[in-house]
Amino acid sequence: MEEQLTEPFFEREKGILIVISGPSCAGKGSVCKIICRKNPDLRLSISETTRQPRNSEKHGREYFYISKESFEERIKQGQYLEYATVYENYYGTPKDYVENLLESGFDVILEIDIQGAAKVRTNYKEGIYIFIVPPSMQELRRRIEERGTESKEQMEMRLNCAYEEMKNADDYSYIVINDDLDDAAQRVQSIITAEKCRTERLKNKIEDILGR
Amino acid sequence: MEEQLTEPFFEREKGILIVISGPSCAGKGSVCKIICRKNPDLRLSISETTRQPRNSEKHGREYFYISKESFEERIKQGQYLEYATVYENYYGTPKDYVENLLESGFDVILEIDIQGAAKVRTNYKEGIYIFIVPPSMQELRRRIEERGTESKEQMEMRLNCAYEEMKNADDYSYIVINDDLDDAAQRVQSIITAEKCRTERLKNKIEDILGR
Repeated sequence: MEEQLTEPFFEREKGILIVISGPSCAGKGSVCKIICRKNPDLRLSISETTRQPRNSEKHGREYFYISKESFEERIKQGQYLEYATVYENYYGTPKDYVENLLESGFDVILEIDIQGAAKVRTNYKEGIYIFIVPPSMQELRRRIEERGTESKEQMEMRLNCAYEEMKNADDYSYIVINDDLDDAAQRVQSIITAEKCRTERLKNKIEDILGR
Repeated sequence: MEEQLTEPFFEREKGILIVISGPSCAGKGSVCKIICRKNPDLRLSISETTRQPRNSEKHGREYFYISKESFEERIKQGQYLEYATVYENYYGTPKDYVENLLESGFDVILEIDIQGAAKVRTNYKEGIYIFIVPPSMQELRRRIEERGTESKEQMEMRLNCAYEEMKNADDYSYIVINDDLDDAAQRVQSIITAEKCRTERLKNKIEDILGR
């Protein structure tokens, strides 16, 4: 990883994988953007895809663009924390990319839909699973309507879908109610800070202090 | 509780009991002072004692001063989260006082020694147990020497005692390394914020959003 080479050499604790999910329009993308901007030890995970890059997109920024053959080979090798097919294209979270960042001491944020998060959970139990929800269904409706790019039927479908998706909250360790974007981002940041203080993560540090 | 009467009437979530402990001179008192000053939803627990108030002390501020008879009666009734005897005086954490604050929606901080924390844990498993430690034994020695009120032998004893006390870290959910007082206080605050986002504490909220 280039990250490893450009960082000064000192021993860092392994990073934490933070999986951010929630119903659509809950605002998980915006929350992730804010905390990544504020926290230099955080990296947003980048997915691999077999779809063609669009005009402004750059390999290694929006996605890693790879061939269908490579993707299928990597599926066979178990190289994805999760993957899915959308309109005949593969999208997946590369295990080695995430693992290398974590080993280099970066915390990695994975912003992902509920099905994807469920798959990651089976492959990476040590992750922190955070569910972002709207403060009310009325507010969610308002946000969906505000987008205004969909027909009334599509909006109703999206709202019903979000309602059903809300029922997955129990699968997550934390719930962040996105009533105010900055507050919600601050709460996610607090969760990361708190998780770094967990006793099981600081056992070595205590041994160091005790000089054993 | 007077707190209940002076607060405006609205339904609040039950507060969280935060137990702060650690070896002596780790700085737990200073950490507690900072977060209580910054966080209006936080109350520092006040103990009951049978010792006489000193000149500047005030009933209900430093301690609740009660008679030996009352204290022993309340022990029998199981009214203490923990209690101990020091120089023939009782000191105890009153269960009803803490419970009333929690029920009114305040988070309650209990700054307490390691033996006391262990007793509270048997009576109140839902608490958050945070262990404050110095960044190194050298720094702890420096802090103990800086106080300068003790003989060399007493200081050595205190240092050895703190070393042994450090070994209790495993009994706590979180460890906060007090390398910088403000950072340490910020980390404790993050732990409280994160704990309030725990799924098990927000189940009712999700039910509300889903309108069930």
